[in-house]
Amino acid sequence: MKRRTFIAAGAAGVVATSVAAPAIAQSQPEIKWRLATSWPKSLDTIYGGAEYLAKRVAAATDNKFQIRVFAGGEIVPALQVLDAVQNNTVEMGHTASYYYVGMDMTFGLDCTIPFGMNARQQNAWMTHGGGLDLLRNFFKEYNVYNIPAGNTGAQMGGWYRKEIKTVDDLKGLKFRIGSGMAGAILAKLGVVPQTIAGGDIYPALEKGTIDATEWVGPYDDEKLGFYKVAKYYYTPGWWEGQAQLSAYVNLGQWESLPQNYKAILTSASAEAQSWMIGKYDTDNVAALRRLIANGTQLRAFSKEILDACYNAAQEFYAETAAKNSKFKTVYEPWKKFLEDEHQWFRVVEQQFDNYMLSRKGA
Amino acid sequence: MKRRTFIAAGAAGVVATSVAAPAIAQSQPEIKWRLATSWPKSLDTIYGGAEYLAKRVAAATDNKFQIRVFAGGEIVPALQVLDAVQNNTVEMGHTASYYYVGMDMTFGLDCTIPFGMNARQQNAWMTHGGGLDLLRNFFKEYNVYNIPAGNTGAQMGGWYRKEIKTVDDLKGLKFRIGSGMAGAILAKLGVVPQTIAGGDIYPALEKGTIDATEWVGPYDDEKLGFYKVAKYYYTPGWWEGQAQLSAYVNLGQWESLPQNYKAILTSASAEAQSWMIGKYDTDNVAALRRLIANGTQLRAFSKEILDACYNAAQEFYAETAAKNSKFKTVYEPWKKFLEDEHQWFRVVEQQFDNYMLSRKGA
Repeated sequence: MKRRTFIAAGAAGVVATSVAAPAIAQSQPEIKWRLATSWPKSLDTIYGGAEYLAKRVAAATDNKFQIRVFAGGEIVPALQVLDAVQNNTVEMGHTASYYYVGMDMTFGLDCTIPFGMNARQQNAWMTHGGGLDLLRNFFKEYNVYNIPAGNTGAQMGGWYRKEIKTVDDLKGLKFRIGSGMAGAILAKLGVVPQTIAGGDIYPALEKGTIDATEWVGPYDDEKLGFYKVAKYYYTPGWWEGQAQLSAYVNLGQWESLPQNYKAILTSASAEAQSWMIGKYDTDNVAALRRLIANGTQLRAFSKEILDACYNAAQEFYAETAAKNSKFKTVYEPWKKFLEDEHQWFRVVEQQFDNYMLSRKGA
Repeated sequence: MKRRTFIAAGAAGVVATSVAAPAIAQSQPEIKWRLATSWPKSLDTIYGGAEYLAKRVAAATDNKFQIRVFAGGEIVPALQVLDAVQNNTVEMGHTASYYYVGMDMTFGLDCTIPFGMNARQQNAWMTHGGGLDLLRNFFKEYNVYNIPAGNTGAQMGGWYRKEIKTVDDLKGLKFRIGSGMAGAILAKLGVVPQTIAGGDIYPALEKGTIDATEWVGPYDDEKLGFYKVAKYYYTPGWWEGQAQLSAYVNLGQWESLPQNYKAILTSASAEAQSWMIGKYDTDNVAALRRLIANGTQLRAFSKEILDACYNAAQEFYAETAAKNSKFKTVYEPWKKFLEDEHQWFRVVEQQFDNYMLSRKGA
């Protein structure tokens, strides 16, 4: 595979009709990058989002900037995208930052943390609330330039073989959960969190090795078949009120890009984000109807359970901030911003949405 | 002003290091466009969104594709952006399509219609629900290529000199409202809708020529000073559960763009959309606090009023669809899509948001 590095060509004085060929090559160089994702190809919204990003970059550069997208495990293990980008094994990645909270809890704030923001609030925090600057500063230590590049919206609370009615029902529950932070919070309430890769969840749930699992929402969950072996589908996934996916770029590679390619990659990431959340919001409806037709029973977590989990989460954040100053640096302004957003969202978004959702027709 | 038209250069076979200069000029031509907006420069979120879009296009093309942004009235009257783009007076515009419902109610569906979608739902409808194709087909008759390029989120219900407690209080109310469709609906309930340009609203409200006005939300409304002459600030603006702003491109100009510039303009519009809604979601909070500190009284429309307006809206849509087949062609799938979205949003987004908003802290 060819890999080339170019010095960014300043725009000053560059006029297409009069410039010599080498200067043009600097602003429109041919670049071929590899992008490792954490996703199986079958998840055509989340993996599809990375492909869409690559397609838009190619379209904006007459195919001169080519990003080849790989599924999790193809060239890099699904949960080692951060390492691979950090070490320049691949130039780029597409992943969920909360996979890396084992290294540092701060990563969670680039994706989602329990009882956190919704998708609109996350976007506000990243674009205007200071979040992106704080996170870029954190990611710099990992030799990574992070770009928001996808969102799932609020996720479901997962599939359970038995109903969960009280906080007591959580005790001893073997629950597969993707968010390490949510696992640590649930452990405070007696849950035994399990880490199992996507493809291995179904047999574990079928055999009863685990009692429950969460994944994303109806459209993705249906593909993994959980409804066949666990009847109760809970809402909401309070640990993922949204989940922002990020494009990771090796910092050296990022810095070597011409300015126009930096802009193109950033704009295409924003477009991929709208594309992804739009696809989830569209495709989840029909999938949910099919699941219900197949016997899935929708259940809502009780207020007692939500309150207990909420309190455990606040305790966890206080503990983490006390021992991890990097987390504290990002979490404290994040928390302040979320409180502000709540004040505003109570005034009009909630009023409008609740009225509309109270109507039977549109 | 120079204006050039180029034939799109197919990407096939174009390799930067071996291609002759003229072919490069085709894929990276110097283009200077004028963009007419409907906004005063003081509205730095909505006007700022158009400027941000232009800035991102320039960054992605090494300043070769330059879009100069004009305030409403500078070169084209604020509410005649559609005409100006249609006639190629300017290559591009940035406006709210509902300003043109006087020509055809179908325009409303490209921006917002009363009791319609929220911002997430609108994005889903445009990106994956078929909305963009339907609307592009409609705009073609106006010689315009439309691109979603901004959103305000849910808007406030406006400023009232007296409290509005019952449907009877609406009778004879002289209410300045931007949405012609909402004006027609409110007229069914006895409101006397007024059309007044932004800068003229304040004196009319001060003198009592009008009883009430709506604009956008706290951040923009504060700049126009309404809180000084009308104390009651109502929620929600049921006629704008979101408002999508659109970039209009003259169809001939669009078709003459090289493929890469088309992609760049589209991606930059998506990025401008995230930027704009993020800025509103961030800046509205502090503005709302200042308004309240200045004596503004928040009020919510009663269920009785919302229900009466909702019913009047449904009546209006049935009448409009019966006499306007173009409206019907877009509205019917829109309505079906909105019902689907409601089914999905009830299941998890609403559960998550309502729980979070019920907490006092974050």
